[in-house]
Amino acid sequence: MSTQIDIARLGQISPEMIFVAEQESVAPEWLRQQMATGHIVIPKNKHHNFSPKGIGLGLSTKVNANFGTSEKHCNPTEELEKMHLAIRFGADAVMDLSTAGQLHQQLKQVIKESSVMVGTVPLYAVACKLLRQGKPIAALDPEMLFEEIELQASMGVDFMTLHAGITSYSLGFLEEDPRLCGLVSRGGALLKRWMQENQRENPLYEQYDRLLDICHTYDVTISLGDGIRPGCGEDASDRGQIAELLTLGSLVDRARAKGVQVMVEGPGHMPMDQIEANMRLMKRICHQAPFYVLGPLVTDSAPGYDHIVSAIGGTWAAIHGADFLCYVTPAEHLCLPNADDVREGVMASRIAAHSADLVKGNPKNKERDRRMSQARRDLDWEGMYEAALDPIRARERKTQSESNDEDHCSMCGNLCAVKNDRGL
Amino acid sequence: MSTQIDIARLGQISPEMIFVAEQESVAPEWLRQQMATGHIVIPKNKHHNFSPKGIGLGLSTKVNANFGTSEKHCNPTEELEKMHLAIRFGADAVMDLSTAGQLHQQLKQVIKESSVMVGTVPLYAVACKLLRQGKPIAALDPEMLFEEIELQASMGVDFMTLHAGITSYSLGFLEEDPRLCGLVSRGGALLKRWMQENQRENPLYEQYDRLLDICHTYDVTISLGDGIRPGCGEDASDRGQIAELLTLGSLVDRARAKGVQVMVEGPGHMPMDQIEANMRLMKRICHQAPFYVLGPLVTDSAPGYDHIVSAIGGTWAAIHGADFLCYVTPAEHLCLPNADDVREGVMASRIAAHSADLVKGNPKNKERDRRMSQARRDLDWEGMYEAALDPIRARERKTQSESNDEDHCSMCGNLCAVKNDRGL
Repeated sequence: MSTQIDIARLGQISPEMIFVAEQESVAPEWLRQQMATGHIVIPKNKHHNFSPKGIGLGLSTKVNANFGTSEKHCNPTEELEKMHLAIRFGADAVMDLSTAGQLHQQLKQVIKESSVMVGTVPLYAVACKLLRQGKPIAALDPEMLFEEIELQASMGVDFMTLHAGITSYSLGFLEEDPRLCGLVSRGGALLKRWMQENQRENPLYEQYDRLLDICHTYDVTISLGDGIRPGCGEDASDRGQIAELLTLGSLVDRARAKGVQVMVEGPGHMPMDQIEANMRLMKRICHQAPFYVLGPLVTDSAPGYDHIVSAIGGTWAAIHGADFLCYVTPAEHLCLPNADDVREGVMASRIAAHSADLVKGNPKNKERDRRMSQARRDLDWEGMYEAALDPIRARERKTQSESNDEDHCSMCGNLCAVKNDRGL
Repeated sequence: MSTQIDIARLGQISPEMIFVAEQESVAPEWLRQQMATGHIVIPKNKHHNFSPKGIGLGLSTKVNANFGTSEKHCNPTEELEKMHLAIRFGADAVMDLSTAGQLHQQLKQVIKESSVMVGTVPLYAVACKLLRQGKPIAALDPEMLFEEIELQASMGVDFMTLHAGITSYSLGFLEEDPRLCGLVSRGGALLKRWMQENQRENPLYEQYDRLLDICHTYDVTISLGDGIRPGCGEDASDRGQIAELLTLGSLVDRARAKGVQVMVEGPGHMPMDQIEANMRLMKRICHQAPFYVLGPLVTDSAPGYDHIVSAIGGTWAAIHGADFLCYVTPAEHLCLPNADDVREGVMASRIAAHSADLVKGNPKNKERDRRMSQARRDLDWEGMYEAALDPIRARERKTQSESNDEDHCSMCGNLCAVKNDRGL
């Protein structure tokens, strides 16, 4: 069975490549070349039937939305609704991060109902099983983890976060260059604990080839997790983070060599003045792998508004190399997001992605803004709603205001600049 | 009567300078020097008694919130409540942009009740009066405008937006380099219409010295309006905008020469990749005048979410020179903001200001983030609320979640990374 990267290397253009090339207004042969080098991935499991999207160099910036049950709030129906809401508001991908309930049954439903690529973090399911059995994470048998990965792959998961880069090498730097906040990646912290308590190397690293074989069979795209991502601005770009990045770079090469599609995850909490350097460094070290970032969060001090904080960092990150933005919702750092949070989070990330695409990508990315601006000039409200990233909200605000049915809005009334400028 | 800039030039340190220096943790003598050159202003009318703040080089980035009645929604009590709400959530300045109701009576109340600097756009009151009389803007007698400015100055307004830079020179460039969206500044569009219909030069430009005399008497800080600010990304950095900027630069010099404090307003709609150049250019052309920006809005396509769009541009602008951010609310481009919009707008701008200050300013700006990060590491929720830019929201979200009274939050439960990292 061939993966998309295998096909591209054979010089062939798959139906998925044709579909993505059309969607992105790029030439299929150019796309194929970028797929062959691994600069672009099309995450799509052989067992999952949906219209795929591409992620990487020269393509529009994509957005992922997370959802999933938790120990404290386990309502699978509600989580499925969040997934559909995220997709309706424009998410290009979803990740089921459930850690409670009938995980596999829920995941099966997610894969069946999702019209976009689906990602998971298989380690969560294993940690969750141990927790239920009252066992500590140290009791994890690596076999359990590989079985879980194989099972999820066979179910049709399109991409998986696998924290294969957190090793005794990278953790060593946390000793000599201590952090304010330690590890804040769930997967990273679980693996670190397992490694320390068992005095063993990370099994995802040790048995990386086994991982690659599974992913190759189903064409699962590996999303190399950044277990050592900084959890506060002060920890950003420290030795531990960069050491893990070096390992991730090597793992990218090994995945590509085996015909496995791969992308790399990145920070995290990071002040605005370190983002560009990090993006450029990552792209260079990881040989132009597609880059998937969480945030970056440019301040630690705005819980309740982290979707905004993330949009600030995400825009700048995407301009300098990030290809895929994981949304952050207003609930981040405080609680599990609800449906409203999902909408706000998706929209904030889409705004970041679009604002970046306006300056980094294909000239066609400017068409929406041009349509909006023409509609504004013409006081054409239907045109404005149509061009809006969230037409529903734009329409609601105007039509529920005192200036419903009028050409101007309730802010300026007849002192409207557009009307005066045009002598109306 | 001496203004703050006069005092600074005499080598004296005013009580206001001492107060601001303490607030900003800078040396009073250093502040005085920056005041003398006009790199910093302390907007405070002689007739307005409150604790002032400084704006400009090396100081923390400030945030302004607008409110005010409009033709379509005129409830002065509600607007006063918005003002108090904005101040409670951290606005450093407010502008009363009312265009309906008993304007002077309302403004008097605003000045009386505001604990922060108050700004206005006097042209609005005059345009509003004409509108009520059923007269076109072309009927405006420049004497009316100067009387209004003098009246508001005598009432205690601390800073005024005066569009003195929109002239036949700068408007000329709009003919040879036409725009998609024309003028979107209310004041700019009104003046342009007046100038064109009367075939006369802008009275605020022609009689600028008269303006300076009034402002000097009361120590009103002039905020030179950017009547030609771009109204969409495609119009950004065009000849008209830059021509007006050149005029504003000359007007800065003239204000300083007469001992009048002055700052300059800037865009507006602007793609992310033009912001840095604009900020640097503005600072150079205007001889390091404090820079007051509206936005910048890095995409046109997100009505309903323009507070986020503005936070993205505002952060980058503040890092590269903007000293004062005018908030943009979720209602922008759609309707008059309500109380919720005011809170969201203030918070979005404060996040931008703070995120910029983390990398541009005084090392003390990092203290809040350090306290937050320590509290996170220690799962100290009270510490997190205390360090949050909006403690009320942070507390609400956690305490209303399923993990109220627990050390972890409802997202991760016992799979909490912080707990696992610390072996808890």
